[in-house]
Amino acid sequence: MREKINKVTIEDIARVLNITAATVSRALNDHPGIAENTRRIVKETAARLHYQPNRIASSLRLGRTNILGVIIPSAEINFFGSVIHGIEKIANQNRYSVLIYQSNELYEHEKLGVQAFLQAQVDGVLASVSKETINADHFIEIKKRGVPLVLFDRAIDSLGVPSVVIDDYAGAFAATKHLIDQGCRHIAHIGGQQHVSIFNQRLKGYIDALNMHGIAVNEDLIVYGRVSVDSGRECMQQLLSLKQTPDAVFAVEDFTALGAMQTIKDADRKIPDDIAIIGFANEQFGEFLTPGLSSVNQQTVTMGEEAASLLFSELQTADRYQSNPKKIVLEARLVCRASSIKQK
Amino acid sequence: MREKINKVTIEDIARVLNITAATVSRALNDHPGIAENTRRIVKETAARLHYQPNRIASSLRLGRTNILGVIIPSAEINFFGSVIHGIEKIANQNRYSVLIYQSNELYEHEKLGVQAFLQAQVDGVLASVSKETINADHFIEIKKRGVPLVLFDRAIDSLGVPSVVIDDYAGAFAATKHLIDQGCRHIAHIGGQQHVSIFNQRLKGYIDALNMHGIAVNEDLIVYGRVSVDSGRECMQQLLSLKQTPDAVFAVEDFTALGAMQTIKDADRKIPDDIAIIGFANEQFGEFLTPGLSSVNQQTVTMGEEAASLLFSELQTADRYQSNPKKIVLEARLVCRASSIKQK
Repeated sequence: MREKINKVTIEDIARVLNITAATVSRALNDHPGIAENTRRIVKETAARLHYQPNRIASSLRLGRTNILGVIIPSAEINFFGSVIHGIEKIANQNRYSVLIYQSNELYEHEKLGVQAFLQAQVDGVLASVSKETINADHFIEIKKRGVPLVLFDRAIDSLGVPSVVIDDYAGAFAATKHLIDQGCRHIAHIGGQQHVSIFNQRLKGYIDALNMHGIAVNEDLIVYGRVSVDSGRECMQQLLSLKQTPDAVFAVEDFTALGAMQTIKDADRKIPDDIAIIGFANEQFGEFLTPGLSSVNQQTVTMGEEAASLLFSELQTADRYQSNPKKIVLEARLVCRASSIKQK
Repeated sequence: MREKINKVTIEDIARVLNITAATVSRALNDHPGIAENTRRIVKETAARLHYQPNRIASSLRLGRTNILGVIIPSAEINFFGSVIHGIEKIANQNRYSVLIYQSNELYEHEKLGVQAFLQAQVDGVLASVSKETINADHFIEIKKRGVPLVLFDRAIDSLGVPSVVIDDYAGAFAATKHLIDQGCRHIAHIGGQQHVSIFNQRLKGYIDALNMHGIAVNEDLIVYGRVSVDSGRECMQQLLSLKQTPDAVFAVEDFTALGAMQTIKDADRKIPDDIAIIGFANEQFGEFLTPGLSSVNQQTVTMGEEAASLLFSELQTADRYQSNPKKIVLEARLVCRASSIKQK
């Protein structure tokens, strides 16, 4: 069907103007050897005949599409939406378009996303790895083809590609220290899947902050969830069933924190007076809650900008993947709201 | 760089196996005329030599990429995220991948998105039109190329392409009637940009519901915003400055409703007792608010499924764009939460 509609060819234009097809082609591609006047007439005729250049053939010739592909675990997490804004900003400055693929945290889908982007002949790929991914062959495939790849937030160091991450350890340390500063001494942690490096780093930051402030780590106060509202609820119920319930919770991310908040409220405990709480990621909804949810800002837009900038420098590099890849670590910043600030 | 890495050709494989290049090509493409054994050996050899098929050439030959392009105004609005889940469900069943482009509500970006998808040779495009778009030439370009196009939520009827929308008028009517049923008689409406058809339909539903229930429309109670939290705040301040303040607000969408809620709380008015409020779109954050925000569910996943199904039937149709395009209108469903239910 597509073929039937796009039936006007370079040969048709050549016939109408009584010139060679080669001249038409050169005129359409702004070849310097073609007179301005000829160029104009060819383009006018092409437009009049509704000529559609064969873009596949064009991209084959030019070797680039001016498209970047971005793979994210989920478009519904504001964190990634915000990173994409940063990527788009730099891409637009470089006259590139950004296409997005969401893996929905599934390894099989992530592989399909890589395939789709290679198929679409994107000039570079930026990706944040799904929680399910334990095999990186599909990313190695991108490298093998010499297409620039940059990872952000959830990176795989062993891949040897440039990445932008935030300092999850320091962010978790600061969040935990903040709760200690508020007078809390029985601080629980609701963690995420520990094979995901960023979640493991947050656990370490929590443990080290306790240790550095002379508070013994109580293993009963560490529970592991699945990074969702429902899971946050379940983990909080578990914590509330302890003999010695916590006076504060550091949740691995905001959706978990939200579920925990709902359970604390349902149990008629006051936030922050009975139990203070802080999340991570500073999702949009946090400031809309009552009380507002304290969290850790991950400099999302900056992360996107830095990742895209790394990609554009890769695009200009001949010896891609030969040298030590650049790794940018952004600072994580505390955002204190009512959920963790105790009246003194 | 890319060319240097992908240097293994079909001819190389043929030489290694001492068979013809044509046989190698057929074996790699699962041609039925090739023996299973030959196919296996060719594929193993190709893998061993790190042969990378020239995918551009493949898509040129096969005429399809198994990729759908989806243009949305913003990936940060859960509404669209949810529609995409519906699209992905049907796409996956048909072994298609879904790439997303966000226009950020900008006409110029929407045009670039269309270009990127045509460049990437997607087999079909699904789009929800940006609020800024008043010229549809870029969508006409998709039609001209014979690429299937389906619009969802924000459609342009004059384009003559299939679409899936919800009944915004009936949803707004039901939301307003619900407030009347709760005993409210001074019901305000915070509207959106009126050149956007769905926002205009919601205004009409509001007006007709008042008229049908014998309540005079008071123009002071209708204010127009820009569909954002900040704009919701400003509009609500305007409504609170009236001599006769409203006892209920029907906001054109949830972000506007959220801003209005914040202003009502700041003014120490009780929700819903002093002022009941209902939004539209049933965004994720609505149920997290205190009180929970009533809204109108737009059957987002169903919308995505229906839109993708329309697209796949278009893909199988020879006389695309010849007959009357199909338009599916989904029912909008009230979701009543604490923000609008008065204790009786």
